[in-house]
Amino acid sequence: MEITLKEIARMVEGDVVGDPNAAIRGVAPFETARPDDITYAAQPKFLKSLSTTAAGAVIVPAAFKAGAGLPERSLVRAGYPQAAFARVAARFHPSHRPAYLGTAGTTGDNVSPSAHIGRNFSAGDNVAIAPFAVIGDNVSVGRNATIHPHAVIGDDVVMGDDVAVGPGVYIGERCRIGNRVTLQPGSVIGSDGFGWAPEGNTYCKIPHTGIVRIEDDVEIGAGNAIDRGTFGETVIGRGVKTDNLVHVAHNVTVGEDTLLVAQVGIAGSTAIGRHSILAGQVGVSGHLTIGDNVTIGPQAGIGKSIADGEVVSGAPGIPHRIWLRVQRIIPMLPEIKKAIDAMEKRLKRIEENG
Amino acid sequence: MEITLKEIARMVEGDVVGDPNAAIRGVAPFETARPDDITYAAQPKFLKSLSTTAAGAVIVPAAFKAGAGLPERSLVRAGYPQAAFARVAARFHPSHRPAYLGTAGTTGDNVSPSAHIGRNFSAGDNVAIAPFAVIGDNVSVGRNATIHPHAVIGDDVVMGDDVAVGPGVYIGERCRIGNRVTLQPGSVIGSDGFGWAPEGNTYCKIPHTGIVRIEDDVEIGAGNAIDRGTFGETVIGRGVKTDNLVHVAHNVTVGEDTLLVAQVGIAGSTAIGRHSILAGQVGVSGHLTIGDNVTIGPQAGIGKSIADGEVVSGAPGIPHRIWLRVQRIIPMLPEIKKAIDAMEKRLKRIEENG
Amino acid sequence: MEITLKEIARMVEGDVVGDPNAAIRGVAPFETARPDDITYAAQPKFLKSLSTTAAGAVIVPAAFKAGAGLPERSLVRAGYPQAAFARVAARFHPSHRPAYLGTAGTTGDNVSPSAHIGRNFSAGDNVAIAPFAVIGDNVSVGRNATIHPHAVIGDDVVMGDDVAVGPGVYIGERCRIGNRVTLQPGSVIGSDGFGWAPEGNTYCKIPHTGIVRIEDDVEIGAGNAIDRGTFGETVIGRGVKTDNLVHVAHNVTVGEDTLLVAQVGIAGSTAIGRHSILAGQVGVSGHLTIGDNVTIGPQAGIGKSIADGEVVSGAPGIPHRIWLRVQRIIPMLPEIKKAIDAMEKRLKRIEENG
Repeated sequence: MEITLKEIARMVEGDVVGDPNAAIRGVAPFETARPDDITYAAQPKFLKSLSTTAAGAVIVPAAFKAGAGLPERSLVRAGYPQAAFARVAARFHPSHRPAYLGTAGTTGDNVSPSAHIGRNFSAGDNVAIAPFAVIGDNVSVGRNATIHPHAVIGDDVVMGDDVAVGPGVYIGERCRIGNRVTLQPGSVIGSDGFGWAPEGNTYCKIPHTGIVRIEDDVEIGAGNAIDRGTFGETVIGRGVKTDNLVHVAHNVTVGEDTLLVAQVGIAGSTAIGRHSILAGQVGVSGHLTIGDNVTIGPQAGIGKSIADGEVVSGAPGIPHRIWLRVQRIIPMLPEIKKAIDAMEKRLKRIEENG
Repeated sequence: MEITLKEIARMVEGDVVGDPNAAIRGVAPFETARPDDITYAAQPKFLKSLSTTAAGAVIVPAAFKAGAGLPERSLVRAGYPQAAFARVAARFHPSHRPAYLGTAGTTGDNVSPSAHIGRNFSAGDNVAIAPFAVIGDNVSVGRNATIHPHAVIGDDVVMGDDVAVGPGVYIGERCRIGNRVTLQPGSVIGSDGFGWAPEGNTYCKIPHTGIVRIEDDVEIGAGNAIDRGTFGETVIGRGVKTDNLVHVAHNVTVGEDTLLVAQVGIAGSTAIGRHSILAGQVGVSGHLTIGDNVTIGPQAGIGKSIADGEVVSGAPGIPHRIWLRVQRIIPMLPEIKKAIDAMEKRLKRIEENG
Repeated sequence: MEITLKEIARMVEGDVVGDPNAAIRGVAPFETARPDDITYAAQPKFLKSLSTTAAGAVIVPAAFKAGAGLPERSLVRAGYPQAAFARVAARFHPSHRPAYLGTAGTTGDNVSPSAHIGRNFSAGDNVAIAPFAVIGDNVSVGRNATIHPHAVIGDDVVMGDDVAVGPGVYIGERCRIGNRVTLQPGSVIGSDGFGWAPEGNTYCKIPHTGIVRIEDDVEIGAGNAIDRGTFGETVIGRGVKTDNLVHVAHNVTVGEDTLLVAQVGIAGSTAIGRHSILAGQVGVSGHLTIGDNVTIGPQAGIGKSIADGEVVSGAPGIPHRIWLRVQRIIPMLPEIKKAIDAMEKRLKRIEENG
């Protein structure tokens, strides 16, 4: 496979500095690219050392000025170099379609005879259902869905177009899945939430009559557990991406384009805003409001609501700029304690000698 | 569906203030209930503002005095209002039986021809086994069991009545499951524990010959991993509830009616007492004893045993009342450090001028 | 079953103190062993109280001197007593072969007719494939492989000899699995990594064209999620053992004989050295280098690289010996703060009284 720089520039809405007809045969990281590969440079560190990559072409920021000292290699300038690179990489490496799904076609006939299909199943064109998948009653899926082995789609689930339900994924009854949603292997969507009403020393289960709604363009990582609402919905907003082993409790709302990194846990009824980032192993308590454009550092423990745009770290979470100073002081605490004890003695001596 | 307040009062062992023949057609949260719904109010905040819900009836504490200023809506007084509400909710919303399990009957004939059933399978009445479930040899289950798709029940497993084994759940050989146990999707019961004997620089696997015993009335959340004992048993006591993605290591004992919130991890041979609560992301080291009625705050790291009734927070875990004060001081550490440095200088000046 | 001490000594490369022809009929822990059991004692605590076990024989360190005051019970001296015990235990308790795999034989004919086998499947002798397992196209496995129910082996996967793929395990296309590898139930090997290139407020998926390579003698716990490389490989080195619910991101390298305890999370492109131990719930940031023989304490948060041999605890991680002192001071912070405030006043008084 071979693509010219001209085509690449068109694909990423950029322009070429160099020979637009130069042919590219692959994509690779900056350090390991070869002369017929394209790579990208977004950070100043790489932009300053363009001559050190062997790549035939480099995708750089739109505003990048190709100076006099530049090597002869070609550039493609694009608004978001890394995203542009990702688009080119996807062209060279289209996502693998497992053989068990059959060959993609235009009519919906890749349904394995070993799958269990419930009544009133409605599917768009080009749906593939793998062996041992289980589809409940009254399920509806759009075009181009791929349902991998051992996926279970509960009764009355409605899914949009271009959905990929990974191996072993469970989607509980009545849940709603948007368009272009990918669910990585082993994730659970629509388990009952952890709702237990005390009744003396024991607990009475609170029925979970709600659903999970996953909006368009969401990707859920491997091994997630996302509970349905007690009443109403747990909502994963448009464009949200979750990493592996993430827990989302009942009635949580995650706003559009927010990232939940691996092993994050969000307790019940908390609302996370848009375009926020929760780093790995963050825990957020229930019934809180986390704003838009919030960044929460790794392992932070959030017990209070956070306003838009805040950057928070630590457990309990505090403003990140304070946390940076706090974390330098914590290892000094033993010395600080000693200093205080010494000062105490000195003060006493002064007071006694009055 | 329609239930009178009289019937509801009987169901929850309470009494009616208002018209006992008023009909209720649904359940809903305090804020969104409509005139033919019933809701509940347990906390003073809601009890003081009963007039703000549109619900036709409200379940309140047994001791609640309906004052003169009360609106005309009806009350049901019950010992545990939230639990009473949960019971009424369960009546209006019986748990969904997936179509793939067939229709519940009184004889054990809902076994999918697509399930794999081992030798000497013994089942009580009204058992339903979904497509692609795998039952080992010499398995015994009680009445009303529902075995969902892709569940694997190992050889010689014994389970009680009214057990629900969710999609993709694994129960390893010889494990024991009590009555009224629900295992949410994707959980693993009876994996080998993490037992490795050092042998120079490498490790020799310690065989895991024990089992997991899950007692009556337990619910295990989605994506849990509960290891079997090395020797002997890992025990999940009667009434225990676990949330999602919880890890329980080999030979752990969890006492009756204890709650393990999401992403808790308990290391090997630790004994957790009865009616305790471990909040989200808590980690407990191995070979400890955690008492009865203990509460451990979110993300706490427990490295020492805890006596009955303690409330512990932080990592390392300390008494919660101290933790509350500590966590207010941590963000001040940079200022405290500055103050100490300044005092140091002032002291020195005094001493020199002494 | 009965084994003489002579045979046991040969098995563990040790020697017998006592009657070499004494027969042993089982293994048990120090406290609960009976007269025909063998147990072990490695730590001084147990070595000093050998007379308190009822075991007929005790495996002790090779250098152990059987003193005059010793009881009459027999000893087996071995280089690594716990590992020796594990080997003897494995002889008495060979790992259970589930009935659904059929009886082990010497020819590869235990392939369930209910499994889905892709084209060009190549298998060594004595392979067992359970019902509802899915094997992709061009998969190759060595001798003695056991593929449990609902496992999915992607296209072009190559696996060595003596591999056990647990129930519900997913191995993505092209991944490489070595010899003597065990994957516990529900783990995901080769999911796409969490790679998202910002494109304004949304994200563009970075294709994951790499693989996971699992080397020889690895055991992966239950419910793990190990992502494939973006480019290149995620590598789990020879002899690595992971506990339950561990997350390993794209392009991570875990060195030989390293242990990852439960719920550990390692972010992208980090390299972990050899023979290190990451305790439970540890989080490690991306693009770091963790050395050989490193020990990281439970729940530590690692944001910086760590040199060989270091012992690190806390979040952020600091040298363990400092952490031990820090954690004693943290609960004193409220008192320290009070003392400082008081000193401040005393200083002021002294200064004013000049």
